[in-house]
Amino acid sequence: MSREPTLRDVADWWGTAVSRVEPGVIELRGRPVQDLIGATSLPGVIWLMLRGEPPTPGQERLLEAALVSSVDHGPHAPSIAAARMAATCGIGLNSAVATGVNLLGDVHGGAGEQCVTLLREISDRAAGGADMDDAAAEVTTAWRARSKYLPGFGHRFHPRDPRRDPLIALVEQAVADGTVRGDHLRAALAVERLLAAGRDRPVPINIDGCTAVIYGELGFPPPLARGLFVLSRSVGILAHAWEETGQGRRNKGPMPPSVLPTHLGETP
Amino acid sequence: MSREPTLRDVADWWGTAVSRVEPGVIELRGRPVQDLIGATSLPGVIWLMLRGEPPTPGQERLLEAALVSSVDHGPHAPSIAAARMAATCGIGLNSAVATGVNLLGDVHGGAGEQCVTLLREISDRAAGGADMDDAAAEVTTAWRARSKYLPGFGHRFHPRDPRRDPLIALVEQAVADGTVRGDHLRAALAVERLLAAGRDRPVPINIDGCTAVIYGELGFPPPLARGLFVLSRSVGILAHAWEETGQGRRNKGPMPPSVLPTHLGETP
Amino acid sequence: MSREPTLRDVADWWGTAVSRVEPGVIELRGRPVQDLIGATSLPGVIWLMLRGEPPTPGQERLLEAALVSSVDHGPHAPSIAAARMAATCGIGLNSAVATGVNLLGDVHGGAGEQCVTLLREISDRAAGGADMDDAAAEVTTAWRARSKYLPGFGHRFHPRDPRRDPLIALVEQAVADGTVRGDHLRAALAVERLLAAGRDRPVPINIDGCTAVIYGELGFPPPLARGLFVLSRSVGILAHAWEETGQGRRNKGPMPPSVLPTHLGETP
Amino acid sequence: MSREPTLRDVADWWGTAVSRVEPGVIELRGRPVQDLIGATSLPGVIWLMLRGEPPTPGQERLLEAALVSSVDHGPHAPSIAAARMAATCGIGLNSAVATGVNLLGDVHGGAGEQCVTLLREISDRAAGGADMDDAAAEVTTAWRARSKYLPGFGHRFHPRDPRRDPLIALVEQAVADGTVRGDHLRAALAVERLLAAGRDRPVPINIDGCTAVIYGELGFPPPLARGLFVLSRSVGILAHAWEETGQGRRNKGPMPPSVLPTHLGETP
Repeated sequence: MSREPTLRDVADWWGTAVSRVEPGVIELRGRPVQDLIGATSLPGVIWLMLRGEPPTPGQERLLEAALVSSVDHGPHAPSIAAARMAATCGIGLNSAVATGVNLLGDVHGGAGEQCVTLLREISDRAAGGADMDDAAAEVTTAWRARSKYLPGFGHRFHPRDPRRDPLIALVEQAVADGTVRGDHLRAALAVERLLAAGRDRPVPINIDGCTAVIYGELGFPPPLARGLFVLSRSVGILAHAWEETGQGRRNKGPMPPSVLPTHLGETP
Repeated sequence: MSREPTLRDVADWWGTAVSRVEPGVIELRGRPVQDLIGATSLPGVIWLMLRGEPPTPGQERLLEAALVSSVDHGPHAPSIAAARMAATCGIGLNSAVATGVNLLGDVHGGAGEQCVTLLREISDRAAGGADMDDAAAEVTTAWRARSKYLPGFGHRFHPRDPRRDPLIALVEQAVADGTVRGDHLRAALAVERLLAAGRDRPVPINIDGCTAVIYGELGFPPPLARGLFVLSRSVGILAHAWEETGQGRRNKGPMPPSVLPTHLGETP
Repeated sequence: MSREPTLRDVADWWGTAVSRVEPGVIELRGRPVQDLIGATSLPGVIWLMLRGEPPTPGQERLLEAALVSSVDHGPHAPSIAAARMAATCGIGLNSAVATGVNLLGDVHGGAGEQCVTLLREISDRAAGGADMDDAAAEVTTAWRARSKYLPGFGHRFHPRDPRRDPLIALVEQAVADGTVRGDHLRAALAVERLLAAGRDRPVPINIDGCTAVIYGELGFPPPLARGLFVLSRSVGILAHAWEETGQGRRNKGPMPPSVLPTHLGETP
Repeated sequence: MSREPTLRDVADWWGTAVSRVEPGVIELRGRPVQDLIGATSLPGVIWLMLRGEPPTPGQERLLEAALVSSVDHGPHAPSIAAARMAATCGIGLNSAVATGVNLLGDVHGGAGEQCVTLLREISDRAAGGADMDDAAAEVTTAWRARSKYLPGFGHRFHPRDPRRDPLIALVEQAVADGTVRGDHLRAALAVERLLAAGRDRPVPINIDGCTAVIYGELGFPPPLARGLFVLSRSVGILAHAWEETGQGRRNKGPMPPSVLPTHLGETP
């Protein structure tokens, strides 16, 4: 930089279009916070903060359903288990939640993001004139050549994820009323058909796939599928960490003290 | 433990009343997740997960207002600044959000929790027969003897926090319609009066105080005031981290490169 | 602040006595880094960075022994278990280590810090003229009135921690050669005697107590006992996270999939 | 799994070759901890924990030099800045250190890891018979076709990193005495020559490159270059967080309060 730096450079370094704070003034995306309080829903303010404009009621409804659907999947998920252990270690609830959220990485929290990418590739190809089933087959084949995992389909635990049908039904309804276009939905259903072909046991769209359909239909870029999952799962992480706090354990590890090495002989 | 440990002991170690997951089954607080999707709001499911039962519409409205009000306070808060820096370091959005949430400790995210405790002490004393203003004076004096900071009142930046009036108005309305009792509100207003007495410049209830009134009125234990703040502020943390991601900086530090030591001479 | 802020204010805000970095210059506590490389040990630079001056050889030897002794205590500690789980979630090794370190809170990593405080209270009282055994009894009694846990003594797993004797022997030797004064050691031994009195089974100094003796003798303030434990245990956390990485699991939870709810029936 | 799960399955799930803990027994990589205390250096135990066997004195010397060289690079690095901010937010020193470590992601802490990969590709090609300079040119060209950043060379701040010469000298000495083979060193020097060719200003090996040479020569797999950097930089993170703790700030953000928006007018 040839000119001398100024305080303005420092301010610009921290400049943002998300919020503006002056003495007596707080604006979120240009809207005074006092106009939002009591008037905007929590999903509405999430949308506003991420997109810059408020959602339509139909968009808000879809977003809220996706956020509600993913709050928890039991204490055996590593994010929840780690947060519960953290809550017994003498750190605050905020740090227990941070522990769980930190674990929502590419493998644990990234499938939704990856699935938005997958569905977008398919729907883009179909938008270019290809048949949706052909597009699904081609993109899926290419994906599998690159990666062992096809994100958004099948579950090691649920033969059919109970969240699939109500979420897909909401998207179908939103397509019908013109809220969304339906291209991500059609892409996901095409992959589901493809995976079912010639198998005894289908490989249905799972929760990552369903929320990817919604976030994709709503126009969120793929990384925000992970970001939104983080907001949703934080609810379950907090609830589990809080429950654990109430049980009074100290230094909770993965196994109860009664089955520690004493009873099991040498660890390998 | 005198008997031999069993697999049951291991399962009990991870037992929970928050959720139940079986093949094909996901229940949140005993309710099938498919019954919640599309039918429950996000604040509704937050309440359900933390309390075990769904809220009334009036309770939900208050909770939602508190959650909406605290999503962001600009990039100069350390939680937001750290999350923005994290987003430039080559870690996922989940880890950037975790970075911000981890910083919401006793000093940065704990004032709401402390203020619920303060207001509860005052309202309990008033419930025992004391005059609310006397109770406020006594409890506040005792608090200050223990701590330099009175949580929930005054702001180093806002002479009057713009979130105060709409939040307090919502609580007043909820008292009027019987949703809440109003004891935490009366306690907070008593402290506000006390702090204004004999000063040129009042020390109004701030955002931590307003949300403490709401969480206290709604019956949340003090630590959940911090927990709920974490959920709310996560929205702003995510929005800022995401915006930063789009700006393409690598290893963003606290100062722009143009004002690094080169231009400032020796750091002390 | 009445005057206008300047860039100098911004630089001062980030001023530090720890290190100085200019183009072509890196100084740690005033020493050019090139003079330290190959000439200073890792414990030596840890001491330098925390204390401002290099240690004597005797001080360095004690510090190194304490750091070596605490690197690991098996995968059943929540910090290690959480880091191993994190390593399977698609986040980097740095984030897996951060997960483990974050869990070293007041309950899991704070006993050393608390024990330095305890021993210092006892030794201060003895320095004021009290008999060491009397001082130990009085301070211990007062501590127990405040807290359920006496930090640094006894272990739920080891009848006698195998690290106790070699660490205490090193401190005794350091007292003999004048490296340290021995007051924290005498305080710890006095508490150990007190706890053994009239019991079948003694309650020996544990690893937190042994390292507290060392850190206390070396003049570290109590919070750095936790800080140094963090550096030490990070070694074990990294080794475990790395081993886990090599095993190829994805989303490792607390229980193997074979004993998930399917086999255990309803979770409570 | 066709057979019924057992407690043994649970134990195996947490099985490890890193450490063994039984009542009265702690073994690190098969060695009783009491044999290591006072006898093994901190770099020695780091090597033992990561590699399974102790290092030779020459290996230990190189490892120690690399660990010492990277402990700090000033408070303007995001990891250090975030840890300093964290220390003012009311979370423990462990959580402040975790905050800094979490930021050592692909961009901030991953260059060493990437550079080990780069140097290994070059040296492997040379081992297959290619001229080292040709191998460097080919691999570097291929790397740049894939990525904008060539890891390990050049520094936006230091024309020549003061840590380069002493570290490279130590490796040369270790090649001379037969401790290491020198292939990663030769690869790095070949890239350095390549980058200098035809330029006014050379692009010397930087700290990531120097430590990558050492970790590569010592046979560490690339991800452990990041892991070892984490251990090293944790020292500086701790020292900075501790210094900040002593300054008594609360909620330290990126800019001093005197230059907050009040003085700067609207944030953009």
